[in-house]
Amino acid sequence: MTLPPLRIALAGLGTVGGGVARLLAGQERLLALRAGRPLQLVAVSARDRRKDRGFPLDSVAWFDDPVALATAPGIDVVVELIGGSEGPARRLVEAALAAGRPVISANKALIAHHGASLGRLAHEGGATLAYEAAVAGGIPIIKMLREGLVGNEVKRIYGILNGTCNYILTTMRESGREFAEVLAEAQKLGYAEADPAFDVDGIDAAHKLAILAALAFGCEVDLGHVHVEGIRHVGAQDIAYAEELGLRVKLIGLAQLIDGALEQRVGPCLVPLEAPIATVEGVFNAVVAEGDFVGTVMAEGRGAGAGPTASAVAADLVDLARGRALPPFALSAAQLRRLPARSLEARRGAYYLRLMVVDRPGVIADVAASLRDEDISMESMIQRGRAPGEVVSVVMTTHDTTEAAMRRALARIAALKAVVAEPRPIRIESF
Amino acid sequence: MTLPPLRIALAGLGTVGGGVARLLAGQERLLALRAGRPLQLVAVSARDRRKDRGFPLDSVAWFDDPVALATAPGIDVVVELIGGSEGPARRLVEAALAAGRPVISANKALIAHHGASLGRLAHEGGATLAYEAAVAGGIPIIKMLREGLVGNEVKRIYGILNGTCNYILTTMRESGREFAEVLAEAQKLGYAEADPAFDVDGIDAAHKLAILAALAFGCEVDLGHVHVEGIRHVGAQDIAYAEELGLRVKLIGLAQLIDGALEQRVGPCLVPLEAPIATVEGVFNAVVAEGDFVGTVMAEGRGAGAGPTASAVAADLVDLARGRALPPFALSAAQLRRLPARSLEARRGAYYLRLMVVDRPGVIADVAASLRDEDISMESMIQRGRAPGEVVSVVMTTHDTTEAAMRRALARIAALKAVVAEPRPIRIESF
Repeated sequence: MTLPPLRIALAGLGTVGGGVARLLAGQERLLALRAGRPLQLVAVSARDRRKDRGFPLDSVAWFDDPVALATAPGIDVVVELIGGSEGPARRLVEAALAAGRPVISANKALIAHHGASLGRLAHEGGATLAYEAAVAGGIPIIKMLREGLVGNEVKRIYGILNGTCNYILTTMRESGREFAEVLAEAQKLGYAEADPAFDVDGIDAAHKLAILAALAFGCEVDLGHVHVEGIRHVGAQDIAYAEELGLRVKLIGLAQLIDGALEQRVGPCLVPLEAPIATVEGVFNAVVAEGDFVGTVMAEGRGAGAGPTASAVAADLVDLARGRALPPFALSAAQLRRLPARSLEARRGAYYLRLMVVDRPGVIADVAASLRDEDISMESMIQRGRAPGEVVSVVMTTHDTTEAAMRRALARIAALKAVVAEPRPIRIESF
Repeated sequence: MTLPPLRIALAGLGTVGGGVARLLAGQERLLALRAGRPLQLVAVSARDRRKDRGFPLDSVAWFDDPVALATAPGIDVVVELIGGSEGPARRLVEAALAAGRPVISANKALIAHHGASLGRLAHEGGATLAYEAAVAGGIPIIKMLREGLVGNEVKRIYGILNGTCNYILTTMRESGREFAEVLAEAQKLGYAEADPAFDVDGIDAAHKLAILAALAFGCEVDLGHVHVEGIRHVGAQDIAYAEELGLRVKLIGLAQLIDGALEQRVGPCLVPLEAPIATVEGVFNAVVAEGDFVGTVMAEGRGAGAGPTASAVAADLVDLARGRALPPFALSAAQLRRLPARSLEARRGAYYLRLMVVDRPGVIADVAASLRDEDISMESMIQRGRAPGEVVSVVMTTHDTTEAAMRRALARIAALKAVVAEPRPIRIESF
């Protein structure tokens, strides 16, 4: 061992920070062997110095101000695990990169919001910014995309990027219960936050998708053009009808390049039961990349939690220790494209539609006419049971059409007297 | 662009070599951008110089003797796509490494048979040997293991490593037909070789497993201790019974470290239908790694073919062009362990057993007694239909036992008069 240790500063000692500290201690020998030099935790910053965290911090310098880690002497790399797109996390990362100090971050919000400017800062400072842990936890998807599939033009990338939503949808399907009830249970079990909006409204998945899209298509991160829908409106009925149709509801983040424009969207989708991604259940995440030479590649694993996230941070640390750092988005900042956003209205595909209608003669005919007037052809229709004068569910699927036509048809349908709730379509994907 | 081009020599212009040549030509601009320098094909060696290969080779030097590429001037890296563990492939790779010239190879047989000595040669010559394409085609599993999961102690690694076998097993299940018939069809379709032994007897999978095990456990490749069984003895009946039991037959390569000893085996296994690997069908491959921090990670994709293999070769080329080469087995040759082999007799798990017996009173009792005498408890038993005096199938599954006990019980059972064919157990895995 002739190389000096890589001296690591850890900002944030929550669940993930604790996991990283435990990994560095527990795998000390292994990491030194694999990195060719010791990985040494030399400094930390967290809110409460006195808290017992279950691992010793005696020999480690303590910083009350995380931002001070950016320039404090004796540090080779800062690992930012504070979280949040602004505040101390952003100040720390910007200050470190500006000072030419490498940064490893698990902060998807920060990278998604400021990836382009941070990439430029890193380039100017001659430092590196690595963030394997920011997307899909323990799945080494950043490495897979940036290095493993480097010989491919990626055509499309999509995935299950939020474990909380996937857990809720899986549990709804297995138990037949509704969203609100399953969410409450997930909160009790610690699978969902007290404020679940970030997860269930698709924001977290949008952050990860924007990062994946930038890497896959060699462009600047463009979070502002991700179309985002969450899973609050998915009903237990939708899930049950979908299974009957050979489909499964998943919250999918999808990005594709069509005619030079980038489509980015997060939302509930119906995927065929026989698609590999349909079998990714519970808290698991998965990412599918379609390349022109490799074809379809899927990676699946735990998308969150102390262990998986620490595993991803360790991969970045060892790359850095070995002198194998890359530009944050594979290309240098100046080479990244700015791609025009593709309107979701141009999306071509099939749709699932559940209508709540008053059961009386002529309703289906009116709905069918609304679709026909937009040149949309129905593929199947299910109306279970009869209840004249009552509100019943009518479920239908369409053949391929455009999102624009579908939206116009929905406006017509919503205006029908017999339709009592806003119709909410779910996109069907032919993965 | 200030760096000089990476000058590439290609040995072998068959399916894979053609794929690599096409990728280098088609993605020229992309690769130069991502690698930070052009990737330039400067020399080739193949059997027939006059054959029309569908791409121009005018500006490329031609070598009749591939081994000459090892030391010919003006070459930065040799890509060996000849195949075979001996002959010109071995001579070329050894000569290149000895001369300090980097080698990229898709040759699983070569790496599996001679990985340890080639690793030492590479170390001594100060060259690198990369082989992403040798295992699971387009899935960047070498990179995932060696870099992406570098922070983990791997506990177990397993996978579907042969697309031909997986295609045959999938087709047998879907069509209900027997092995021989499906194999013949696969040969016609080009999914199986004229001499299928290499694939269907598990040899190809064993090569890949031995390489994965070396990487996962930081040890020398030890092909000689891989226990190998193929799929010739799997019957259509077994596949149908398995589905009834909630299980699916897959040819699995599995390596695990137990009490400091390495178990390596390839053979048909029964996996639960709900295990992610059970849904990997047709020609697709998949590898599952279990790490102490990351948990379970699975990667799935095309395990063979010109495009996927070329994609993997390109990943190695770009790493080399970027100056990011690693030692062949992640650690330097001297640091690799030699692990004792674990006897398969020590394997603990459940078993599936189909017996062909003469249908007469007392047969099941005799079989049950044979199992009981070895302390094996039956979990389920199926005997469909009655045909007194005729040969019928009896299918049973056991609770967990050891392979040694199972083998002793099988010897007893085979000796029973009513048992008319050699009983062939299939291991049940609780993935």
